[in-house]
Amino acid sequence: MQKLPRDKNNDYTQDMAQQRRQVVTAETGAGLEHVGSFSFDPGVLPGNIENFSGVAQVPLGFAGPMLVNGEQAQGEYYVPMATSEGTLVASYSRGMRLTREAGGIKTTVIDDAMQRAPVFVFEDARAALRFGHWVEENFEAIKAKAEETTSSGKLRNIEQYAVAKMRWLRFNFTCGDAAGQNMVSKATRHACMWMIDQGIPGLENFTLAANFDTDKKHSFVNSLHTRGKRAVAEVTLPAKLVQDIMHTTPEDLFRQRQYSNMGAIMAGSVCNGAHYANGITAMFIACGQDVANVAESSAGFNYSEITPEGDYYFSTTIPSLVVATYGGGTGLPTQKECLDVLGCYGKGGVYKFAEIVAATVLCGELSLASAIVADEWVSSHDTFGRNRP
Amino acid sequence: MQKLPRDKNNDYTQDMAQQRRQVVTAETGAGLEHVGSFSFDPGVLPGNIENFSGVAQVPLGFAGPMLVNGEQAQGEYYVPMATSEGTLVASYSRGMRLTREAGGIKTTVIDDAMQRAPVFVFEDARAALRFGHWVEENFEAIKAKAEETTSSGKLRNIEQYAVAKMRWLRFNFTCGDAAGQNMVSKATRHACMWMIDQGIPGLENFTLAANFDTDKKHSFVNSLHTRGKRAVAEVTLPAKLVQDIMHTTPEDLFRQRQYSNMGAIMAGSVCNGAHYANGITAMFIACGQDVANVAESSAGFNYSEITPEGDYYFSTTIPSLVVATYGGGTGLPTQKECLDVLGCYGKGGVYKFAEIVAATVLCGELSLASAIVADEWVSSHDTFGRNRP
Amino acid sequence: MQKLPRDKNNDYTQDMAQQRRQVVTAETGAGLEHVGSFSFDPGVLPGNIENFSGVAQVPLGFAGPMLVNGEQAQGEYYVPMATSEGTLVASYSRGMRLTREAGGIKTTVIDDAMQRAPVFVFEDARAALRFGHWVEENFEAIKAKAEETTSSGKLRNIEQYAVAKMRWLRFNFTCGDAAGQNMVSKATRHACMWMIDQGIPGLENFTLAANFDTDKKHSFVNSLHTRGKRAVAEVTLPAKLVQDIMHTTPEDLFRQRQYSNMGAIMAGSVCNGAHYANGITAMFIACGQDVANVAESSAGFNYSEITPEGDYYFSTTIPSLVVATYGGGTGLPTQKECLDVLGCYGKGGVYKFAEIVAATVLCGELSLASAIVADEWVSSHDTFGRNRP
Amino acid sequence: MQKLPRDKNNDYTQDMAQQRRQVVTAETGAGLEHVGSFSFDPGVLPGNIENFSGVAQVPLGFAGPMLVNGEQAQGEYYVPMATSEGTLVASYSRGMRLTREAGGIKTTVIDDAMQRAPVFVFEDARAALRFGHWVEENFEAIKAKAEETTSSGKLRNIEQYAVAKMRWLRFNFTCGDAAGQNMVSKATRHACMWMIDQGIPGLENFTLAANFDTDKKHSFVNSLHTRGKRAVAEVTLPAKLVQDIMHTTPEDLFRQRQYSNMGAIMAGSVCNGAHYANGITAMFIACGQDVANVAESSAGFNYSEITPEGDYYFSTTIPSLVVATYGGGTGLPTQKECLDVLGCYGKGGVYKFAEIVAATVLCGELSLASAIVADEWVSSHDTFGRNRP
Repeated sequence: MQKLPRDKNNDYTQDMAQQRRQVVTAETGAGLEHVGSFSFDPGVLPGNIENFSGVAQVPLGFAGPMLVNGEQAQGEYYVPMATSEGTLVASYSRGMRLTREAGGIKTTVIDDAMQRAPVFVFEDARAALRFGHWVEENFEAIKAKAEETTSSGKLRNIEQYAVAKMRWLRFNFTCGDAAGQNMVSKATRHACMWMIDQGIPGLENFTLAANFDTDKKHSFVNSLHTRGKRAVAEVTLPAKLVQDIMHTTPEDLFRQRQYSNMGAIMAGSVCNGAHYANGITAMFIACGQDVANVAESSAGFNYSEITPEGDYYFSTTIPSLVVATYGGGTGLPTQKECLDVLGCYGKGGVYKFAEIVAATVLCGELSLASAIVADEWVSSHDTFGRNRP
Repeated sequence: MQKLPRDKNNDYTQDMAQQRRQVVTAETGAGLEHVGSFSFDPGVLPGNIENFSGVAQVPLGFAGPMLVNGEQAQGEYYVPMATSEGTLVASYSRGMRLTREAGGIKTTVIDDAMQRAPVFVFEDARAALRFGHWVEENFEAIKAKAEETTSSGKLRNIEQYAVAKMRWLRFNFTCGDAAGQNMVSKATRHACMWMIDQGIPGLENFTLAANFDTDKKHSFVNSLHTRGKRAVAEVTLPAKLVQDIMHTTPEDLFRQRQYSNMGAIMAGSVCNGAHYANGITAMFIACGQDVANVAESSAGFNYSEITPEGDYYFSTTIPSLVVATYGGGTGLPTQKECLDVLGCYGKGGVYKFAEIVAATVLCGELSLASAIVADEWVSSHDTFGRNRP
Repeated sequence: MQKLPRDKNNDYTQDMAQQRRQVVTAETGAGLEHVGSFSFDPGVLPGNIENFSGVAQVPLGFAGPMLVNGEQAQGEYYVPMATSEGTLVASYSRGMRLTREAGGIKTTVIDDAMQRAPVFVFEDARAALRFGHWVEENFEAIKAKAEETTSSGKLRNIEQYAVAKMRWLRFNFTCGDAAGQNMVSKATRHACMWMIDQGIPGLENFTLAANFDTDKKHSFVNSLHTRGKRAVAEVTLPAKLVQDIMHTTPEDLFRQRQYSNMGAIMAGSVCNGAHYANGITAMFIACGQDVANVAESSAGFNYSEITPEGDYYFSTTIPSLVVATYGGGTGLPTQKECLDVLGCYGKGGVYKFAEIVAATVLCGELSLASAIVADEWVSSHDTFGRNRP
Repeated sequence: MQKLPRDKNNDYTQDMAQQRRQVVTAETGAGLEHVGSFSFDPGVLPGNIENFSGVAQVPLGFAGPMLVNGEQAQGEYYVPMATSEGTLVASYSRGMRLTREAGGIKTTVIDDAMQRAPVFVFEDARAALRFGHWVEENFEAIKAKAEETTSSGKLRNIEQYAVAKMRWLRFNFTCGDAAGQNMVSKATRHACMWMIDQGIPGLENFTLAANFDTDKKHSFVNSLHTRGKRAVAEVTLPAKLVQDIMHTTPEDLFRQRQYSNMGAIMAGSVCNGAHYANGITAMFIACGQDVANVAESSAGFNYSEITPEGDYYFSTTIPSLVVATYGGGTGLPTQKECLDVLGCYGKGGVYKFAEIVAATVLCGELSLASAIVADEWVSSHDTFGRNRP
């Protein structure tokens, strides 16, 4: 097969995209008319993709309006969701109707950190331990050095994890409205290079990443110590609303929650909820997030209570919600439009966006749990999801 | 805010999509010109989305060509990847060049199962145990009943998990070329309804799902017993190639692997690899997969050895790769084109597609690990990922 | 330091024990009078220890009587507990009083299996997969071969787990009244040696254990698929009893359970209970079990409900309870006496013993949870646990 | 069955122990002669046990001598091990011979903390977050208050973990030479009572423990952040010694380590080693530790390398080693003798003891891994473990 054509001077053009499509079509026989249909100038794409050849057109619907009583997100929102899974938008919309009638969803971002975790290997555990002490004592200098490479990234603290003669330093940054993975890589590397220069006995090298960040996959360290935002959404649902809209009761929902807790504990699941990933993924695609972060962001914790009044307190906590409203794919044409619909694009929007995501996840959890309990799950998919074989 | 308009008779039209966009724009002030730019008739969308209003245009590039020596995938492939993360396509392409020069990637699908896991609650553990025995004894009848609702789904076996007075039945189906989540929901429910009718003492109800499937999130039960396909990709890289293309050595890559294994073990990570999710997500968006399944599909296991000849054996195993080449979003316009590029669309394509995904993941693992070891990671992102703040 | 003296002909004598104590005392200055005080003939010890030099005298108290309505354990029991932790026996006794007044504890052993899991490594994943199929097809022959080495061990089934080019076979045996770890090692090795002789392409060797058993440590595979016995204990407590004896209410206990579930889920704990290990360890030491199996046996699952009548349904499930009433340390003098107190020593006793352990664990869970909720935990330790510095 | 007799004035006497044995014998028919044989005055037992009736006599052997190059443990040690598992002492002794000839084991305690983790529940996540900030700001006052109840316990730091409207405070103390579980309970409760008095809005109550400590069970939070001591043992073994004593090679041991790593990762095991629990348990029983802490202490991490010279670097890291040389059962007659053999009893001994435990674990890991690789595992148990049925 041919190498794909590239233009070293200006690769982000209609012409180069077309040349690549032509090569692919010539070699495979596959038409690429739809892939080649897009509404923007490829010149906006450097930094977002290589070998640009067209677009995936992912169907997009709006769910809602959803009512949020957040610290940043206050009011009603149409939530953009890009998906090909029938029932999804309808199901989230149902949860939004329920929570809106209940007075809205309270949302709070309770933690914020993005990591890079280099590992340092020494002659023995003692040398690694001495290095750990040195890092504690020199935190301010390390922080100053790390922050030289970024205007928005701030080094918050460094966790240390040790095994054998190795020591991981888990650098925790806040990153403004960016997701920050590249920012923290660069800043951490810069600080590590400086450490190497300090003449610490036995320190000659480091490895910038070795699975303690942890990036693009779930880990307990992420759930415990937050990766991205830790966002909570809470609502209290009057029993009558649960009955009228969801055709079930707080008691039945609560019982299902107990079974689901035990199932999650025994199965070793990273989420005791039903399907955080569905809502998160649909919003991430629509809003220009790094969709691969669904890996971390799909972990989470549902917690509910029946109140003394017989109502249903329900909450979702997303411990590793990696989101951005600036940088990455947030400025791409359709993606920016969707962030604008939420009033989240750009500086100052990221906490608001995190809150809206958390509220959306809550709506989806309530809707799916109710459908299971009321035995409407399969029938609703028969109605809305007919594309199944 | 207004309710979004819906047409009960025919909601999948240009007009309805436009009406919804107009309402959203009117209420939020956000323009939706790009979202409203798509190249297909909304009439193809029932079963894929509700409240259709337009599309997310996700930039798409081709990586490769990649050489695969699979059981189904044999030959060279351009791999469609939809992403907004700079460096991603370039990095996977680098791994594809390396493995192609090494003779290609061997791929094998070693397991296949899609689940639904209802829970049954009894008076006590003994009644639950008796029910478990009944299920074992009546497997053939249950299987026959479950398969009444589907032509392609086959009930392979039922695992049982018990705690207290509860018993989960984890129904394992093969689903042909569909991902199968809806198929197995319907078939499992149908079989459970029949069980309820059999007059089993103490059995009056069931809950169709309670976190033992486990769907849209990672769990140990998924990693142990496969959800979707369990796919392995393997390659042996001559030391000289590693040096020439990746600027590192098998020994250095292997050492990094050891650190990464320890990091993953200590951090409690569901993947000891670097970034399975990046390649999987980009292919899932491009190829019409249920992208939320990145949650499960991002788990995995890297394993490597230095051969007696000093070369580098490297492998990736994806234990929960949820993929389809039929149904769901696979038939949407750009998505079908991308599956056609791989020659995977439709009946008979799903193992081939799983193999290509696994091979792609392997290329990304090799490329990122090499970049970290050779200290080219940050600099490559500075070159390709300039959209960062 | 001197080598410890050994008598190649007969090392299990008072004289040799004394000689070793004398050497240790001579080299370290430590007196060993108490260690040298034991009430039995060392001649009973071959197979239990090497370099025998005396005994650890662990204080032993009886808790109870405890009322059990098991399948095997029926009636009242004094439970022997060997411990040095003040409050422990008193706390378990309190739970036994509560459950006895509530009508006793229902116990059931719902699964039974002991494992050895050799790993087989092949040229590639395909060869490993072919081997897996061969094992399925030849299960009866493998079973017959494995059972040649044991009269009580029966090969129940073989689970398979695969990654890269490796395949673990997890042999599940039932072992009568023995714990069975050595029995299954020998039987599995024998079967594997036979497999090697069958001329399977690419199969030249195996490794008898590589962490998929998993022995002497917790794992998800153990919790999911049982190691030793899977034992459930259940009780329903009238609200008035909870108030009178525990000074709390079902509602408060249930609320504490909810918090503890969330704590366990977030912390990544292998047990959502409070202290299974306390009761299990004290019984294991008293009754001649392999105490190191506390590692597996300490995992478990509490599950509770408030009944429609306002009473408290509470249960404990121990998924990996490794116990024996024959072989190992069960026949040692004090240990056999303790098993005799329970009527469990020897053939036919192991399910009964497992049930009593599970019931005991349940009592301890109720007692500690109540103490925490009623704020009596610290004060009771001040009363009973004064040996703290 | 009769209630067990108790003397409210002085229950720790020969007479009362005998009375209880007589009741048990009368009710069950089981003789308790051996249980009633002990060499000390029951008057030493308050704070260690209730309903004292005699002792479990656990066979005790010495392994070694073992050569340790620790920070505290320096020189040769006979290691007391109480067990009924044949082969155990012999196997550890073999590892001690190997490591002694290799120049001894380097040991280091790299972290130290004992926890209690109360949970505080608020009206919503925001109130919980505000409380978290208050705790950070008032750490010094909280510390002063907590330390009022103890002379040796020092509050090091407080970790915070949050979900929904709950917040766990994980109090980390150093506890001198005590294990400290009771000490930290009392101190933490005292500090929490003080917090309640500070008029923090919405703070009316707390629960002293809810699974974030986590006590008597493994958890990821324990492995990540240390419970008790975090102890590392390291050794480098010349290839020739491995061959001569263990009948294998560094390469074969290393390959087995790779398989075991993958097995542990896939199985979801809390320890990638072979049998930490065996050595730890035997030492814990002999030396008066809280043996139930085997639950936490059995987790751990093996890490090995082949050095450029072809030798074998091997290490064990125990992240949650809960040990004491003062308080608890350490002062009991046989237990104190065993601690004296190691020169560890009392003030100042606990790090030394932790190092010796870690070194012992390392010896056991090397011995068992070698036996598996050299196929001597089953045969050695046939020789030494004949008590199996």
